[in-house]
Amino acid sequence: MATPRATSSTAIRVVPRDAGVAAWSAAAGAGDMLGTVPYGRNVWSTRGIARWSRYEDGAMTAHDPQRRAALVRALVEIVAERGLDAVSVREVAAHADVSIGAVQHHFRTKSAMLQAAMEDVVTRWAAELDREISDDPPKALRLIAHRLVPDRSDDADSRVWLAFVARAAVEEELAAVHADSMRKLEDSLVAGAMTGRSAPARQRRTIADEMAALMALVDGLTVAVLVEPDRMSPRRARTILDRHLDHMLAGG
Amino acid sequence: MATPRATSSTAIRVVPRDAGVAAWSAAAGAGDMLGTVPYGRNVWSTRGIARWSRYEDGAMTAHDPQRRAALVRALVEIVAERGLDAVSVREVAAHADVSIGAVQHHFRTKSAMLQAAMEDVVTRWAAELDREISDDPPKALRLIAHRLVPDRSDDADSRVWLAFVARAAVEEELAAVHADSMRKLEDSLVAGAMTGRSAPARQRRTIADEMAALMALVDGLTVAVLVEPDRMSPRRARTILDRHLDHMLAGG
Repeated sequence: MATPRATSSTAIRVVPRDAGVAAWSAAAGAGDMLGTVPYGRNVWSTRGIARWSRYEDGAMTAHDPQRRAALVRALVEIVAERGLDAVSVREVAAHADVSIGAVQHHFRTKSAMLQAAMEDVVTRWAAELDREISDDPPKALRLIAHRLVPDRSDDADSRVWLAFVARAAVEEELAAVHADSMRKLEDSLVAGAMTGRSAPARQRRTIADEMAALMALVDGLTVAVLVEPDRMSPRRARTILDRHLDHMLAGG
Repeated sequence: MATPRATSSTAIRVVPRDAGVAAWSAAAGAGDMLGTVPYGRNVWSTRGIARWSRYEDGAMTAHDPQRRAALVRALVEIVAERGLDAVSVREVAAHADVSIGAVQHHFRTKSAMLQAAMEDVVTRWAAELDREISDDPPKALRLIAHRLVPDRSDDADSRVWLAFVARAAVEEELAAVHADSMRKLEDSLVAGAMTGRSAPARQRRTIADEMAALMALVDGLTVAVLVEPDRMSPRRARTILDRHLDHMLAGG
Protein backbone atom coordinates (compact mmCIF):
# COMPACT_ATOMS: atom_id res chain seq x y z
CA MET A 1 0.00 0.00 0.00
CA ALA A 2 1.32 3.40 -0.92
CA THR A 3 1.41 6.29 1.48
CA PRO A 4 -1.32 8.89 1.03
CA ARG A 5 -0.13 11.48 -1.44
CA ALA A 6 -0.99 15.04 -0.51
CA THR A 7 -2.85 17.12 -3.07
CA SER A 8 -3.77 20.47 -1.56
CA SER A 9 -6.16 19.83 1.30
CA THR A 10 -6.97 16.26 0.37
CA ALA A 11 -4.87 13.16 -0.06
CA ILE A 12 -5.27 10.37 -2.54
CA ARG A 13 -4.23 6.86 -1.67
CA VAL A 14 -2.78 5.15 -4.70
CA VAL A 15 -3.15 1.42 -4.37
CA PRO A 16 -0.98 -0.65 -6.68
CA ARG A 17 -2.81 -3.30 -8.61
CA ASP A 18 -1.39 -6.68 -7.81
CA ALA A 19 -3.74 -9.33 -9.11
CA GLY A 20 -5.70 -10.35 -12.18
CA VAL A 21 -5.42 -9.34 -15.81
CA ALA A 22 -2.13 -11.11 -15.80
CA ALA A 23 -1.30 -10.71 -19.45
CA TRP A 24 -1.51 -6.94 -19.20
CA SER A 25 -0.09 -6.35 -15.79
CA ALA A 26 3.21 -8.12 -16.30
CA ALA A 27 4.21 -5.83 -19.13
CA ALA A 28 2.59 -2.67 -17.84
CA GLY A 29 4.26 -2.78 -14.45
CA ALA A 30 1.92 -3.25 -11.53
CA GLY A 31 3.22 -0.24 -9.64
CA ASP A 32 1.95 2.03 -12.38
CA MET A 33 -1.62 0.93 -11.95
CA LEU A 34 -4.36 2.51 -9.95
CA GLY A 35 -7.56 1.05 -8.80
CA THR A 36 -9.19 -0.94 -6.10
CA VAL A 37 -12.57 -2.54 -5.92
CA PRO A 38 -14.57 -3.58 -2.89
CA TYR A 39 -13.90 -6.94 -1.29
CA GLY A 40 -10.19 -6.39 -1.40
CA ARG A 41 -9.67 -7.06 -5.09
CA ASN A 42 -7.40 -4.84 -7.06
CA VAL A 43 -8.32 -4.31 -10.65
CA TRP A 44 -7.38 -2.61 -13.81
CA SER A 45 -8.56 0.95 -14.28
CA THR A 46 -11.11 0.86 -17.07
CA ARG A 47 -12.68 3.81 -18.85
CA GLY A 48 -9.84 5.72 -17.38
CA ILE A 49 -11.23 6.53 -13.98
CA ALA A 50 -9.59 4.68 -11.16
CA ARG A 51 -11.00 3.96 -7.77
CA TRP A 52 -9.75 6.63 -5.42
CA SER A 53 -9.90 6.46 -1.69
CA ARG A 54 -10.18 10.02 -0.54
CA TYR A 55 -9.07 11.34 2.78
CA GLU A 56 -9.66 14.70 4.35
CA ASP A 57 -6.43 16.05 5.81
CA GLY A 58 -4.84 12.65 5.46
CA ALA A 59 -7.37 10.77 7.55
CA MET A 60 -10.70 9.09 6.89
CA THR A 61 -13.67 11.33 7.45
CA ALA A 62 -16.58 9.95 9.37
CA HIS A 63 -18.51 9.09 6.24
CA ASP A 64 -21.15 6.44 6.43
CA PRO A 65 -20.27 4.05 3.57
CA GLN A 66 -23.85 2.85 3.15
CA ARG A 67 -25.24 6.35 3.08
CA ARG A 68 -22.51 7.44 0.70
CA ALA A 69 -23.37 4.55 -1.61
CA ALA A 70 -27.06 5.45 -1.44
CA LEU A 71 -26.27 9.05 -2.39
CA VAL A 72 -24.16 7.90 -5.33
CA ARG A 73 -26.98 5.61 -6.48
CA ALA A 74 -29.41 8.52 -6.24
CA LEU A 75 -27.10 10.67 -8.35
CA VAL A 76 -26.64 7.94 -10.96
CA GLU A 77 -30.41 7.53 -11.24
CA ILE A 78 -31.03 11.24 -11.60
CA VAL A 79 -28.28 11.68 -14.19
CA ALA A 80 -29.47 8.62 -16.14
CA GLU A 81 -33.07 9.80 -16.21
CA ARG A 82 -32.81 13.55 -16.47
CA GLY A 83 -29.20 14.49 -16.96
CA LEU A 84 -26.69 16.36 -14.90
CA ASP A 85 -28.70 19.58 -15.02
CA ALA A 86 -31.34 17.96 -12.83
CA VAL A 87 -28.81 17.21 -10.11
CA SER A 88 -28.68 19.41 -7.05
CA VAL A 89 -27.89 18.75 -3.42
CA ARG A 90 -31.58 19.24 -2.68
CA GLU A 91 -32.63 16.82 -5.43
CA VAL A 92 -30.17 14.12 -4.38
CA ALA A 93 -31.27 14.50 -0.74
CA ALA A 94 -34.91 14.09 -1.73
CA HIS A 95 -34.19 11.14 -4.00
CA ALA A 96 -32.18 9.34 -1.32
CA ASP A 97 -34.57 10.43 1.42
CA VAL A 98 -31.93 12.05 3.59
CA SER A 99 -31.33 15.58 4.79
CA ILE A 100 -29.54 18.20 2.74
CA GLY A 101 -26.93 18.35 5.49
CA ALA A 102 -26.24 14.64 5.08
CA VAL A 103 -25.52 15.12 1.40
CA GLN A 104 -23.27 18.08 2.11
CA HIS A 105 -21.41 16.07 4.73
CA HIS A 106 -20.50 13.43 2.15
CA PHE A 107 -20.05 15.59 -0.94
CA ARG A 108 -19.06 19.20 -0.88
CA THR A 109 -19.98 19.93 -4.49
CA LYS A 110 -22.01 18.57 -7.36
CA SER A 111 -18.72 17.78 -9.10
CA ALA A 112 -17.56 15.72 -6.12
CA MET A 113 -20.79 13.75 -6.35
CA LEU A 114 -20.38 13.24 -10.08
CA GLN A 115 -16.82 12.10 -9.57
CA ALA A 116 -17.94 9.60 -6.95
CA ALA A 117 -20.63 8.32 -9.32
CA MET A 118 -18.06 7.92 -12.10
CA GLU A 119 -15.81 6.02 -9.70
CA ASP A 120 -18.75 3.79 -8.84
CA VAL A 121 -19.39 3.09 -12.53
CA VAL A 122 -15.77 2.26 -13.21
CA THR A 123 -15.43 0.10 -10.13
CA ARG A 124 -18.29 -2.07 -11.29
CA TRP A 125 -16.91 -2.24 -14.85
CA ALA A 126 -13.49 -3.14 -13.57
CA ALA A 127 -14.83 -5.84 -11.28
CA GLU A 128 -16.72 -7.34 -14.18
CA LEU A 129 -13.68 -7.28 -16.42
CA ASP A 130 -11.55 -8.79 -13.71
CA ARG A 131 -13.88 -11.78 -13.64
CA GLU A 132 -13.86 -12.19 -17.40
CA ILE A 133 -10.39 -11.23 -18.37
CA SER A 134 -8.25 -13.76 -20.16
CA ASP A 135 -4.55 -14.39 -20.52
CA ASP A 136 -5.01 -13.84 -24.25
CA PRO A 137 -4.29 -10.14 -24.99
CA PRO A 138 -6.31 -9.87 -28.23
CA LYS A 139 -9.27 -11.54 -26.56
CA ALA A 140 -8.91 -9.26 -23.55
CA LEU A 141 -8.77 -6.21 -25.81
CA ARG A 142 -12.00 -7.26 -27.50
CA LEU A 143 -13.70 -7.93 -24.17
CA ILE A 144 -12.73 -4.54 -22.84
CA ALA A 145 -13.83 -2.69 -25.98
CA HIS A 146 -17.15 -4.52 -26.05
CA ARG A 147 -17.76 -3.95 -22.37
CA LEU A 148 -17.25 -0.21 -22.67
CA VAL A 149 -19.82 0.34 -25.43
CA PRO A 150 -23.29 0.25 -23.85
CA ASP A 151 -25.69 -2.49 -24.85
CA ARG A 152 -28.69 -0.25 -24.20
CA SER A 153 -29.28 3.35 -25.22
CA ASP A 154 -30.56 4.13 -21.72
CA ASP A 155 -27.54 2.59 -20.00
CA ALA A 156 -27.15 4.54 -16.77
CA ASP A 157 -23.41 4.03 -16.43
CA SER A 158 -22.67 5.33 -19.90
CA ARG A 159 -24.90 8.34 -19.36
CA VAL A 160 -22.97 9.12 -16.22
CA TRP A 161 -19.77 8.79 -18.24
CA LEU A 162 -21.04 11.23 -20.89
CA ALA A 163 -22.19 13.72 -18.25
CA PHE A 164 -18.79 13.35 -16.63
CA VAL A 165 -16.71 14.07 -19.73
CA ALA A 166 -18.95 16.96 -20.77
CA ARG A 167 -18.36 18.52 -17.39
CA ALA A 168 -14.67 17.60 -17.39
CA ALA A 169 -14.27 19.66 -20.58
CA VAL A 170 -14.79 22.80 -18.50
CA GLU A 171 -13.69 21.70 -15.04
CA GLU A 172 -10.00 21.19 -14.45
CA GLU A 173 -10.20 18.94 -11.43
CA LEU A 174 -12.47 16.42 -13.14
CA ALA A 175 -10.38 16.64 -16.30
CA ALA A 176 -7.21 15.85 -14.35
CA VAL A 177 -8.71 12.71 -12.80
CA HIS A 178 -10.01 11.60 -16.18
CA ALA A 179 -6.82 12.41 -18.08
CA ASP A 180 -4.58 10.66 -15.60
CA SER A 181 -6.38 7.39 -15.82
CA MET A 182 -7.01 7.55 -19.58
CA ARG A 183 -3.25 7.85 -19.89
CA LYS A 184 -2.85 4.76 -17.72
CA LEU A 185 -5.50 2.91 -19.69
CA GLU A 186 -3.68 3.67 -22.94
CA ASP A 187 -0.36 2.65 -21.42
CA SER A 188 -1.67 -0.66 -20.22
CA LEU A 189 -3.38 -1.37 -23.55
CA VAL A 190 -0.05 -0.70 -25.25
CA ALA A 191 1.77 -2.87 -22.74
CA GLY A 192 -0.73 -5.65 -23.35
CA ALA A 193 -0.37 -5.36 -27.11
CA MET A 194 3.41 -5.54 -26.79
CA THR A 195 3.50 -8.53 -24.46
CA GLY A 196 6.37 -10.75 -25.45
CA ARG A 197 7.60 -8.31 -28.10
CA SER A 198 10.42 -5.86 -27.92
CA ALA A 199 9.61 -3.18 -30.41
CA PRO A 200 11.55 -0.11 -31.46
CA ALA A 201 10.27 3.25 -30.25
CA ARG A 202 8.70 4.06 -33.60
CA GLN A 203 6.64 0.89 -33.57
CA ARG A 204 5.62 1.54 -29.99
CA ARG A 205 4.27 4.94 -31.03
CA THR A 206 2.27 3.33 -33.81
CA ILE A 207 0.79 0.82 -31.39
CA ALA A 208 -0.01 3.62 -28.94
CA ASP A 209 -1.84 5.50 -31.69
CA GLU A 210 -3.78 2.35 -32.55
CA MET A 211 -4.85 1.91 -28.94
CA ALA A 212 -5.79 5.59 -28.69
CA ALA A 213 -7.82 5.21 -31.90
CA LEU A 214 -9.64 2.23 -30.39
CA MET A 215 -10.39 4.20 -27.22
CA ALA A 216 -11.71 7.12 -29.29
CA LEU A 217 -13.82 4.81 -31.43
CA VAL A 218 -15.30 3.23 -28.30
CA ASP A 219 -16.15 6.67 -26.92
CA GLY A 220 -17.67 7.89 -30.19
CA LEU A 221 -19.76 4.74 -30.54
CA THR A 222 -20.90 5.18 -26.94
CA VAL A 223 -22.13 8.70 -27.68
CA ALA A 224 -23.96 7.48 -30.80
CA VAL A 225 -25.64 4.54 -29.02
CA LEU A 226 -26.79 6.87 -26.23
CA VAL A 227 -28.11 9.68 -28.39
CA GLU A 228 -29.20 8.02 -31.64
CA PRO A 229 -29.87 4.32 -31.14
CA ASP A 230 -31.99 4.14 -34.30
CA ARG A 231 -28.94 4.83 -36.44
CA MET A 232 -26.41 3.28 -34.08
CA SER A 233 -27.96 0.27 -32.40
CA PRO A 234 -25.80 -1.48 -29.79
CA ARG A 235 -25.59 -4.37 -32.22
CA ARG A 236 -24.34 -2.22 -35.06
CA ALA A 237 -21.81 -0.60 -32.74
CA ARG A 238 -20.44 -4.06 -31.95
CA THR A 239 -20.23 -4.96 -35.64
CA ILE A 240 -18.25 -1.77 -36.31
CA LEU A 241 -16.05 -2.39 -33.28
CA ASP A 242 -15.32 -5.98 -34.33
CA ARG A 243 -14.42 -4.95 -37.85
CA HIS A 244 -12.05 -2.34 -36.48
CA LEU A 245 -10.48 -4.86 -34.10
CA ASP A 246 -10.18 -7.46 -36.87
CA HIS A 247 -8.23 -5.02 -39.04
CA MET A 248 -6.14 -3.83 -36.13
CA LEU A 249 -5.26 -7.27 -34.81
CA ALA A 250 -4.46 -8.45 -38.33
CA GLY A 251 -1.90 -5.65 -38.39
CA GLY A 252 -3.98 -3.85 -41.07
CA MET B 1 -38.12 25.75 -51.22
CA ALA B 2 -40.16 23.29 -49.27
CA THR B 3 -43.31 24.24 -47.47
CA PRO B 4 -42.99 24.66 -43.72
CA ARG B 5 -43.57 21.32 -42.06
CA ALA B 6 -45.75 21.46 -38.96
CA THR B 7 -44.37 19.93 -35.79
CA SER B 8 -46.70 20.57 -32.88
CA SER B 9 -46.84 24.31 -32.29
CA THR B 10 -43.82 25.14 -34.39
CA ALA B 11 -42.95 24.56 -38.00
CA ILE B 12 -39.62 23.83 -39.53
CA ARG B 13 -38.74 25.00 -42.99
CA VAL B 14 -36.68 22.40 -44.76
CA VAL B 15 -34.59 24.04 -47.42
CA PRO B 16 -33.17 21.69 -50.03
CA ARG B 17 -29.51 22.06 -50.64
CA ASP B 18 -28.89 22.92 -54.26
CA ALA B 19 -25.34 24.14 -54.62
CA GLY B 20 -21.78 23.23 -53.73
CA VAL B 21 -20.26 19.98 -52.56
CA ALA B 22 -21.09 18.71 -56.00
CA ALA B 23 -19.44 15.35 -55.73
CA TRP B 24 -21.60 14.44 -52.76
CA SER B 25 -24.86 16.07 -53.65
CA ALA B 26 -25.36 14.38 -57.01
CA ALA B 27 -25.42 10.94 -55.49
CA ALA B 28 -27.12 11.85 -52.23
CA GLY B 29 -30.11 13.56 -53.80
CA ALA B 30 -30.41 17.24 -53.07
CA GLY B 31 -33.97 16.98 -51.80
CA ASP B 32 -32.79 14.84 -48.95
CA MET B 33 -30.48 17.50 -47.62
CA LEU B 34 -31.10 20.05 -44.97
CA GLY B 35 -29.24 23.15 -44.25
CA THR B 36 -28.93 26.78 -45.12
CA VAL B 37 -26.33 29.31 -44.26
CA PRO B 38 -26.52 33.07 -44.21
CA TYR B 39 -26.03 34.99 -47.44
CA GLY B 40 -28.33 32.65 -49.30
CA ARG B 41 -25.90 29.78 -49.66
CA ASN B 42 -27.15 26.27 -49.14
CA VAL B 43 -24.69 23.88 -47.65
CA TRP B 44 -24.18 20.42 -46.51
CA SER B 45 -25.25 19.54 -43.01
CA THR B 46 -22.10 18.88 -41.04
CA ARG B 47 -21.75 17.46 -37.57
CA GLY B 48 -25.29 16.36 -38.09
CA ILE B 49 -27.17 19.44 -37.04
CA ALA B 50 -28.78 21.31 -39.85
CA ARG B 51 -29.70 24.91 -39.97
CA TRP B 52 -33.35 25.15 -39.08
CA SER B 53 -35.52 28.16 -39.66
CA ARG B 54 -38.05 28.10 -36.88
CA TYR B 55 -41.45 29.62 -37.03
CA GLU B 56 -44.04 30.03 -34.33
CA ASP B 57 -47.48 28.98 -35.50
CA GLY B 58 -46.22 28.83 -39.04
CA ALA B 59 -45.15 32.46 -39.23
CA MET B 60 -42.05 34.40 -38.30
CA THR B 61 -42.14 35.72 -34.79
CA ALA B 62 -40.99 39.25 -34.22
CA HIS B 63 -37.54 38.16 -33.21
CA ASP B 64 -34.73 40.61 -33.57
CA PRO B 65 -32.06 38.69 -35.56
CA GLN B 66 -29.21 40.74 -34.15
CA ARG B 67 -30.38 40.32 -30.59
CA ARG B 68 -30.96 36.63 -31.17
CA ALA B 69 -27.41 36.28 -32.51
CA ALA B 70 -26.03 38.18 -29.52
CA LEU B 71 -27.87 35.83 -27.14
CA VAL B 72 -26.51 32.79 -28.96
CA ARG B 73 -23.00 34.24 -28.75
CA ALA B 74 -23.48 34.81 -25.03
CA LEU B 75 -24.57 31.21 -24.57
CA VAL B 76 -21.64 29.85 -26.59
CA GLU B 77 -19.23 31.89 -24.49
CA ILE B 78 -20.75 30.73 -21.21
CA VAL B 79 -20.81 27.07 -22.29
CA ALA B 80 -17.25 27.25 -23.59
CA GLU B 81 -15.94 28.84 -20.40
CA ARG B 82 -17.97 27.26 -17.66
CA GLY B 83 -20.14 24.56 -19.19
CA LEU B 84 -23.84 24.11 -19.63
CA ASP B 85 -24.48 24.08 -15.90
CA ALA B 86 -23.55 27.74 -15.73
CA VAL B 87 -26.20 28.66 -18.30
CA SER B 88 -29.44 30.21 -17.12
CA VAL B 89 -31.81 32.76 -18.60
CA ARG B 90 -30.54 35.20 -15.99
CA GLU B 91 -26.91 34.49 -16.79
CA VAL B 92 -27.38 34.82 -20.55
CA ALA B 93 -29.30 38.07 -20.05
CA ALA B 94 -26.50 39.48 -17.91
CA HIS B 95 -23.78 38.31 -20.32
CA ALA B 96 -25.56 39.83 -23.33
CA ASP B 97 -26.61 42.89 -21.33
CA VAL B 98 -30.32 42.56 -22.07
CA SER B 99 -33.37 41.98 -19.92
CA ILE B 100 -34.50 38.54 -18.80
CA GLY B 101 -37.73 39.15 -20.71
CA ALA B 102 -35.76 39.68 -23.93
CA VAL B 103 -34.07 36.30 -23.51
CA GLN B 104 -37.39 34.62 -22.80
CA HIS B 105 -38.93 36.24 -25.86
CA HIS B 106 -36.30 34.65 -28.09
CA PHE B 107 -35.80 31.32 -26.32
CA ARG B 108 -38.39 29.62 -24.21
CA THR B 109 -36.01 27.15 -22.59
CA LYS B 110 -32.36 26.55 -21.95
CA SER B 111 -32.58 23.65 -24.40
CA ALA B 112 -33.92 25.95 -27.10
CA MET B 113 -30.95 28.22 -26.52
CA LEU B 114 -28.52 25.32 -26.66
CA GLN B 115 -30.10 24.09 -29.86
CA ALA B 116 -29.75 27.54 -31.40
CA ALA B 117 -26.11 27.64 -30.34
CA MET B 118 -25.50 24.24 -31.92
CA GLU B 119 -27.15 25.45 -35.12
CA ASP B 120 -24.87 28.45 -35.04
CA VAL B 121 -21.81 26.23 -34.67
CA VAL B 122 -22.85 23.98 -37.53
CA THR B 123 -23.74 26.85 -39.79
CA ARG B 124 -20.27 28.26 -39.45
CA TRP B 125 -18.66 24.86 -39.98
CA ALA B 126 -20.80 24.24 -43.02
CA ALA B 127 -20.00 27.61 -44.53
CA GLU B 128 -16.31 26.92 -44.07
CA LEU B 129 -16.57 23.50 -45.67
CA ASP B 130 -18.56 24.89 -48.54
CA ARG B 131 -15.68 27.22 -49.31
CA GLU B 132 -13.09 24.45 -49.14
CA ILE B 133 -14.89 21.45 -50.48
CA SER B 134 -13.52 19.70 -53.54
CA ASP B 135 -14.97 17.57 -56.29
CA ASP B 136 -12.66 14.82 -55.10
CA PRO B 137 -14.64 12.62 -52.64
CA PRO B 138 -11.66 11.19 -50.71
CA LYS B 139 -10.19 14.66 -50.35
CA ALA B 140 -13.56 16.01 -49.24
CA LEU B 141 -13.91 13.21 -46.69
CA ARG B 142 -10.52 14.06 -45.22
CA LEU B 143 -11.34 17.77 -45.12
CA ILE B 144 -14.60 17.12 -43.32
CA ALA B 145 -13.07 14.75 -40.79
CA HIS B 146 -10.21 17.15 -40.07
CA ARG B 147 -12.52 20.10 -39.74
CA LEU B 148 -14.71 18.36 -37.18
CA VAL B 149 -11.89 17.51 -34.76
CA PRO B 150 -10.98 20.69 -32.84
CA ASP B 151 -7.52 22.15 -33.28
CA ARG B 152 -7.56 23.60 -29.76
CA SER B 153 -8.62 21.97 -26.52
CA ASP B 154 -10.58 25.09 -25.59
CA ASP B 155 -12.44 25.23 -28.89
CA ALA B 156 -15.79 26.82 -28.07
CA ASP B 157 -17.72 25.16 -30.89
CA SER B 158 -16.65 21.68 -29.90
CA ARG B 159 -17.46 22.36 -26.27
CA VAL B 160 -20.93 23.42 -27.32
CA TRP B 161 -21.19 20.19 -29.33
CA LEU B 162 -20.18 18.09 -26.30
CA ALA B 163 -22.63 19.91 -24.04
CA PHE B 164 -25.28 19.40 -26.70
CA VAL B 165 -24.83 15.63 -27.05
CA ALA B 166 -24.59 15.13 -23.28
CA ARG B 167 -27.91 16.87 -22.92
CA ALA B 168 -29.39 15.11 -25.96
CA ALA B 169 -28.72 11.77 -24.21
CA VAL B 170 -31.52 12.61 -21.79
CA GLU B 171 -33.69 14.99 -23.79
CA GLU B 172 -35.75 13.57 -26.61
CA GLU B 173 -36.30 16.73 -28.60
CA LEU B 174 -32.60 17.51 -28.84
CA ALA B 175 -31.83 13.86 -29.56
CA ALA B 176 -34.32 13.84 -32.44
CA VAL B 177 -32.75 16.89 -34.09
CA HIS B 178 -29.29 15.40 -33.66
CA ALA B 179 -30.26 11.91 -34.80
CA ASP B 180 -32.04 13.13 -37.90
CA SER B 181 -29.12 15.03 -39.21
CA MET B 182 -26.49 12.47 -38.17
CA ARG B 183 -28.47 10.04 -40.29
CA LYS B 184 -28.32 12.49 -43.20
CA LEU B 185 -24.63 13.05 -42.65
CA GLU B 186 -23.97 9.31 -42.79
CA ASP B 187 -26.16 8.96 -45.87
CA SER B 188 -24.35 11.68 -47.73
CA LEU B 189 -20.95 10.33 -46.73
CA VAL B 190 -22.02 6.95 -48.10
CA ALA B 191 -23.37 8.54 -51.25
CA GLY B 192 -20.11 10.41 -51.71
CA ALA B 193 -18.09 7.23 -51.20
CA MET B 194 -20.21 5.43 -53.77
CA THR B 195 -20.08 8.14 -56.43
CA GLY B 196 -19.75 6.49 -59.79
CA ARG B 197 -20.09 2.99 -58.35
CA SER B 198 -23.09 0.75 -58.31
CA ALA B 199 -22.56 -1.56 -55.39
CA PRO B 200 -24.64 -4.45 -54.13
CA ALA B 201 -26.59 -3.91 -50.92
CA ARG B 202 -24.09 -5.84 -48.84
CA GLN B 203 -21.23 -3.66 -49.98
CA ARG B 204 -23.32 -0.57 -49.33
CA ARG B 205 -23.83 -1.70 -45.74
CA THR B 206 -20.10 -2.19 -45.32
CA ILE B 207 -19.43 1.31 -46.63
CA ALA B 208 -22.12 2.71 -44.33
CA ASP B 209 -20.44 1.03 -41.35
CA GLU B 210 -17.09 2.48 -42.43
CA MET B 211 -18.57 5.97 -42.57
CA ALA B 212 -20.28 5.48 -39.20
CA ALA B 213 -16.95 4.29 -37.77
CA LEU B 214 -15.26 7.43 -39.10
CA MET B 215 -17.96 9.63 -37.55
CA ALA B 216 -17.58 7.83 -34.21
CA LEU B 217 -13.79 8.14 -34.34
CA VAL B 218 -14.10 11.87 -35.03
CA ASP B 219 -16.44 12.26 -32.06
CA GLY B 220 -14.26 10.22 -29.73
CA LEU B 221 -11.14 12.15 -30.75
CA THR B 222 -13.05 15.38 -30.18
CA VAL B 223 -13.88 14.35 -26.62
CA ALA B 224 -10.25 13.39 -25.98
CA VAL B 225 -8.84 16.65 -27.39
CA LEU B 226 -11.28 18.67 -25.27
CA VAL B 227 -10.78 16.82 -22.00
CA GLU B 228 -7.21 15.50 -22.13
CA PRO B 229 -5.11 17.48 -24.60
CA ASP B 230 -1.86 16.31 -22.97
CA ARG B 231 -2.52 12.75 -24.08
CA MET B 232 -4.50 13.64 -27.19
CA SER B 233 -3.06 16.77 -28.72
CA PRO B 234 -4.90 18.13 -31.76
CA ARG B 235 -1.87 17.12 -33.78
CA ARG B 236 -1.94 13.53 -32.54
CA ALA B 237 -5.68 13.36 -33.23
CA ARG B 238 -4.97 14.32 -36.84
CA THR B 239 -2.25 11.70 -37.16
CA ILE B 240 -4.66 9.05 -35.90
CA LEU B 241 -7.41 10.32 -38.18
CA ASP B 242 -5.15 10.29 -41.22
CA ARG B 243 -3.96 6.78 -40.53
CA HIS B 244 -7.56 5.64 -40.22
CA LEU B 245 -8.51 7.40 -43.46
CA ASP B 246 -5.47 5.97 -45.25
CA HIS B 247 -6.51 2.43 -44.33
CA MET B 248 -10.13 3.10 -45.16
CA LEU B 249 -9.50 4.73 -48.51
CA ALA B 250 -7.05 1.98 -49.43
CA GLY B 251 -9.94 -0.41 -48.90
CA GLY B 252 -8.16 -1.91 -45.89
